[in-house]
Amino acid sequence: MDLTEQVENELCQTGIEELDVMLGGGVPTGSTVLVVGSSGSGKTTLCMQYLINGARRGERGVFFTITEPLFKLTKNMEGFDFYDKQLIESGMVNLIDLRIISERLGLDTEKYTVEDAAALLDVLKDIADELNVKRLVIDSITALCYRLQTKEMIRDFIFKLGSSLAAMKCTTFLTSEVPPRVFQYSQYGIEEFIADGIIFLGDVERKGDLIRTFQVIKLRGQAHSRTKLAMSISSRNGVELAPLLKSRE
Amino acid sequence: MDLTEQVENELCQTGIEELDVMLGGGVPTGSTVLVVGSSGSGKTTLCMQYLINGARRGERGVFFTITEPLFKLTKNMEGFDFYDKQLIESGMVNLIDLRIISERLGLDTEKYTVEDAAALLDVLKDIADELNVKRLVIDSITALCYRLQTKEMIRDFIFKLGSSLAAMKCTTFLTSEVPPRVFQYSQYGIEEFIADGIIFLGDVERKGDLIRTFQVIKLRGQAHSRTKLAMSISSRNGVELAPLLKSRE
Amino acid sequence: MDLTEQVENELCQTGIEELDVMLGGGVPTGSTVLVVGSSGSGKTTLCMQYLINGARRGERGVFFTITEPLFKLTKNMEGFDFYDKQLIESGMVNLIDLRIISERLGLDTEKYTVEDAAALLDVLKDIADELNVKRLVIDSITALCYRLQTKEMIRDFIFKLGSSLAAMKCTTFLTSEVPPRVFQYSQYGIEEFIADGIIFLGDVERKGDLIRTFQVIKLRGQAHSRTKLAMSISSRNGVELAPLLKSRE
Amino acid sequence: MDLTEQVENELCQTGIEELDVMLGGGVPTGSTVLVVGSSGSGKTTLCMQYLINGARRGERGVFFTITEPLFKLTKNMEGFDFYDKQLIESGMVNLIDLRIISERLGLDTEKYTVEDAAALLDVLKDIADELNVKRLVIDSITALCYRLQTKEMIRDFIFKLGSSLAAMKCTTFLTSEVPPRVFQYSQYGIEEFIADGIIFLGDVERKGDLIRTFQVIKLRGQAHSRTKLAMSISSRNGVELAPLLKSRE
Amino acid sequence: MDLTEQVENELCQTGIEELDVMLGGGVPTGSTVLVVGSSGSGKTTLCMQYLINGARRGERGVFFTITEPLFKLTKNMEGFDFYDKQLIESGMVNLIDLRIISERLGLDTEKYTVEDAAALLDVLKDIADELNVKRLVIDSITALCYRLQTKEMIRDFIFKLGSSLAAMKCTTFLTSEVPPRVFQYSQYGIEEFIADGIIFLGDVERKGDLIRTFQVIKLRGQAHSRTKLAMSISSRNGVELAPLLKSRE
Amino acid sequence: MDLTEQVENELCQTGIEELDVMLGGGVPTGSTVLVVGSSGSGKTTLCMQYLINGARRGERGVFFTITEPLFKLTKNMEGFDFYDKQLIESGMVNLIDLRIISERLGLDTEKYTVEDAAALLDVLKDIADELNVKRLVIDSITALCYRLQTKEMIRDFIFKLGSSLAAMKCTTFLTSEVPPRVFQYSQYGIEEFIADGIIFLGDVERKGDLIRTFQVIKLRGQAHSRTKLAMSISSRNGVELAPLLKSRE
Repeated sequence: MDLTEQVENELCQTGIEELDVMLGGGVPTGSTVLVVGSSGSGKTTLCMQYLINGARRGERGVFFTITEPLFKLTKNMEGFDFYDKQLIESGMVNLIDLRIISERLGLDTEKYTVEDAAALLDVLKDIADELNVKRLVIDSITALCYRLQTKEMIRDFIFKLGSSLAAMKCTTFLTSEVPPRVFQYSQYGIEEFIADGIIFLGDVERKGDLIRTFQVIKLRGQAHSRTKLAMSISSRNGVELAPLLKSRE
Repeated sequence: MDLTEQVENELCQTGIEELDVMLGGGVPTGSTVLVVGSSGSGKTTLCMQYLINGARRGERGVFFTITEPLFKLTKNMEGFDFYDKQLIESGMVNLIDLRIISERLGLDTEKYTVEDAAALLDVLKDIADELNVKRLVIDSITALCYRLQTKEMIRDFIFKLGSSLAAMKCTTFLTSEVPPRVFQYSQYGIEEFIADGIIFLGDVERKGDLIRTFQVIKLRGQAHSRTKLAMSISSRNGVELAPLLKSRE
Repeated sequence: MDLTEQVENELCQTGIEELDVMLGGGVPTGSTVLVVGSSGSGKTTLCMQYLINGARRGERGVFFTITEPLFKLTKNMEGFDFYDKQLIESGMVNLIDLRIISERLGLDTEKYTVEDAAALLDVLKDIADELNVKRLVIDSITALCYRLQTKEMIRDFIFKLGSSLAAMKCTTFLTSEVPPRVFQYSQYGIEEFIADGIIFLGDVERKGDLIRTFQVIKLRGQAHSRTKLAMSISSRNGVELAPLLKSRE
Repeated sequence: MDLTEQVENELCQTGIEELDVMLGGGVPTGSTVLVVGSSGSGKTTLCMQYLINGARRGERGVFFTITEPLFKLTKNMEGFDFYDKQLIESGMVNLIDLRIISERLGLDTEKYTVEDAAALLDVLKDIADELNVKRLVIDSITALCYRLQTKEMIRDFIFKLGSSLAAMKCTTFLTSEVPPRVFQYSQYGIEEFIADGIIFLGDVERKGDLIRTFQVIKLRGQAHSRTKLAMSISSRNGVELAPLLKSRE
Repeated sequence: MDLTEQVENELCQTGIEELDVMLGGGVPTGSTVLVVGSSGSGKTTLCMQYLINGARRGERGVFFTITEPLFKLTKNMEGFDFYDKQLIESGMVNLIDLRIISERLGLDTEKYTVEDAAALLDVLKDIADELNVKRLVIDSITALCYRLQTKEMIRDFIFKLGSSLAAMKCTTFLTSEVPPRVFQYSQYGIEEFIADGIIFLGDVERKGDLIRTFQVIKLRGQAHSRTKLAMSISSRNGVELAPLLKSRE
Repeated sequence: MDLTEQVENELCQTGIEELDVMLGGGVPTGSTVLVVGSSGSGKTTLCMQYLINGARRGERGVFFTITEPLFKLTKNMEGFDFYDKQLIESGMVNLIDLRIISERLGLDTEKYTVEDAAALLDVLKDIADELNVKRLVIDSITALCYRLQTKEMIRDFIFKLGSSLAAMKCTTFLTSEVPPRVFQYSQYGIEEFIADGIIFLGDVERKGDLIRTFQVIKLRGQAHSRTKLAMSISSRNGVELAPLLKSRE
């Protein structure tokens, strides 16, 4: 089998060139990738770019947000050249506010019971199925879990989410918000159990500058580099990766 | 579109010159910015200066305080040259003590129930709407949360506050008090979920001197520098920023 | 307005010469200053000296103690040359054991209910009013809080104490006991919310010697140095401050 | 007695050459080995390779998974040259999803009662007995414990699991997931009590690269090296070990 | 007043020569000194030596133990030359096992109620009064507190003990057991509130050797050195102190 | 009195030559020694060697195990040359599985009530008395405590165990399992209260090698070295000690 074909069949290209190279072509189709970082680390931008790039390749995607209202999300994204309003309008990239879904279901938008969480998971699955999406983003799993009241409910929810995602056909990016300057993958230490891959967005301080870093910690079923890269975010190119020591101009 | 116009339309200038430059013109209008720092880091001064500068540009503002009584706040601010009593008297900058609001609502000023918190949020929104304010400060979200009894209530309140602020038209600065010498953005790790921007006020020890530092960690929808700057507070200019290594005289 | 007059009107001189210089004349009248340090850091001595110096200027003061019995307190203070028994006898400096107050109120001296705490606050305020004191010390807020049973009661008490102190005319020093070698301002992280100023008494180890250090972290409404100084305590002069690197002989 | 014979009789060769050398031939038959590491450290790959290598030697094995669905597990493993589908098909290596077992038992797959846990242990034992397996893997003990609701239930379960495993004839590898960059052997600090051996998979950062490390911490009844090795995972050879300082090309 | 007289009147000499020099003569009579250290740091030996030396000066003492049975305590002390059986037999030094007292009072020896603790405090006070002791040791306050069930009970007990000790005439040494290598003064952070003095027994590692260290952290009412000294314990001299850098032979 | 006689009368030789020298002859008879270390640190081997060496001198011993089944324990020990099956068969060293004792008493083997723990202590004491053992090992006190449900029960049990051991004539080694790389003496911080001696088994990393270390932290009633030694475990000699810097070949 030749590589290009394999990529098309089995790997989901992120469209972020340096990342796809690092991953040996892309993320195995159907994987769940945890995108980990503290507030301001670029998780949302990375995920949106992944969806837009997919849509350009003809793969429909959906972005579930739980903290940022849609009008803010789109306004912020409009500053990026990669962002393409038409892909949203044509339904190739769907932006959905889980709080609005919750409201329509008659749920409290800020606090879920076990049943609420289950109902939400069902809706989420239904939407993904109906739209026949290939790429799915949940931003963020952390804020979703915050709406659950006990550790037990959270564990239960995460494992159920994992089963749902595994049953779907789509390749999923889950953002996981962690405190700054702490090397951990998730708020509860359980989120990574349902992840086939982990991408860690951190930062290092260099002479008073905060340099963004990017590292693939794990990717099941795919040989990959674990080198830490410098990451920059520009309005022109969105996320860009470069060697850490000699950062690209 | 020319830059000046864009700035006027979409960016909210802080009026602190070096900061506006750092931010590429200002904070996107309608954003919520978390101003993080420990006790004594200059959060209150920075926020007041932001309001006063706005009022000078014709943008009405409101400062909600929860820990410092108004007479102390004004007395302390009178020491600064940027402070202008007339702007307060003319109603361009409104200083409101949330404890007095609470009292008028018949609430316990030091302890809130879920309903109290909701009522307070409503009043806060009403005031902002009625005064047609463009700039809003809450000093501090931390002390507000302390008045709630459980983690669950606090999470619920923060998410509700986030929704309220997103629905308003104004650009908001929330102060977040953290312990000294600890790199975190908030007391509960949830406050940053509703923030479009994060400014971190810290300090470094240099030969026994405590140097104030200033860093923009995050600002959604706006390319910005993340360089750490030296910050000083003088009665003449209020907050001033300078490169960290060669601090300005 | 000339400086001397301003000082008399608006600033409360501690009478510790180097400190008053550091503070640009003294502490703004009516402020609440948190004096932070671990056991043995000199908090009590500093506060007593502040009261005695005030009494010499004709400002009446009161020292509320909660851990050290009065006979021990006075015995320990008699070793210092700055201490003046006559100022105590003449009622210019009043030493009051809060446990004795509690007893008289019929309260358990080691455990307070919400009502007990409120009653105690009232008495404290009454005493301060009746004696018309200009300077007030509570040694320590930490031990007071220890007598409350829940975090909720403690938060409530601290905010109420803050309101009471803000309403009084006097300048207050509250001692805050923290664990050794830990950089924090208080036991509960709330005490600093009611403080206009923070003085941190620490220590550094130099070749096996524990050098006492002194640093003004914060002082609202007053430009001040934040340089760390060496502090020594001698029976002749009480608290003395000197540059840290070349400690005075 | 000659060494080869002893090895056949009493030692269970992992088939990972450098590891068997390190261990003086292999793991004592009947041992329980804890394979410790954070997410993405290679625990699953190591364990699968151990089972496949055993099957090649004619020792039947079973792999109990609790987080990764079987179709994902096999898909991921198919990328490795060591993996041999026929050994799975012939029943020499059995892959069993504990969630499917739970479902068949009528249990909640994400939450166990004490009775559920006991029933599951029984089934696990029955399967191992019936298949007459020599090698057993549970991936992971951490995710199993997460499904129990209290610390007490977890302790109880771990000790019971230890007794069960000790009573079986097979050599067991249990994976233990720990947070990244933290040197501990298990989530609860109890898992190691039932382990005869501990293998620690960590990583060190070298010039921005994350190097995988491998270390045998403990192996009862067997003299062994405790040197930390570099570990790599390639699709051709699976897990490979090399001296840490001069990592093999 | 001449120094010798003052010493006799107001200072309690420990009889450990270097320590008395460090303290400017001794510990102020009536003080409560917390002797802090981890297991094996020499707290018990230091306290016993303090009592024996006092007895030699004609000051009666009592040693309350709570963890070590008397026969073990005396057996261990008999290895020291400073120990003098006759002082025990003559009643100049009284060794009392608090567990035996508890038993006689009909209490559970390992678990106290609030009433038990109060009863024990009364007995302790009665014994001290009746024997007219000048020096009192409790070894350890930590183990006493462990027998109380809640933090609240412990706080209450410590404050009550403080009041009792302040009311007695004797100079008290309380041992406080802390974890190794951790710089804290007590298990609960409250014990130091009732202490007029704090002595910290630590250790530093020097080329694989554990050197014992000795430091006076605090002593109310007495100017004292805070230099860290090397401490050794020999059967001939018991506790000996020497400069840390050039440890005495 | 000559040294040899004293040793015979009052000191219990471990039979590990370098250790006995370090201890000035051995452990005082009747002491309780806590052998502290993480999983894999050699606690079990050290204790078994201590028992075997005692048996060779004619002192009967008993080894209570709670985590490792007897067949595994003996199998593992048979790899050591110091181990002598005949001493077990002749009853000079008795190996007893506390879980089997529990079962015979009709107790749950994995979870104790207060009564169960008391019953177990009684049996333990009866066995020691009946066999007239001079040396006793409990491996481990940590796993025993894990079977108790609350901190209160654990404290109570530890103090009762301490009293029981003090009342017996035998010299006891208790193993205490602590997390790796953490300098503490026990899981609960209470176990050391009943210990007359503490031996700490740790490790240091040297160029990627884990070197085992050995240190006597405390030994009441016996002058002893506190130097940290390198420890090795070989099948020929069991535990061996050597200077840390130039480790013996």
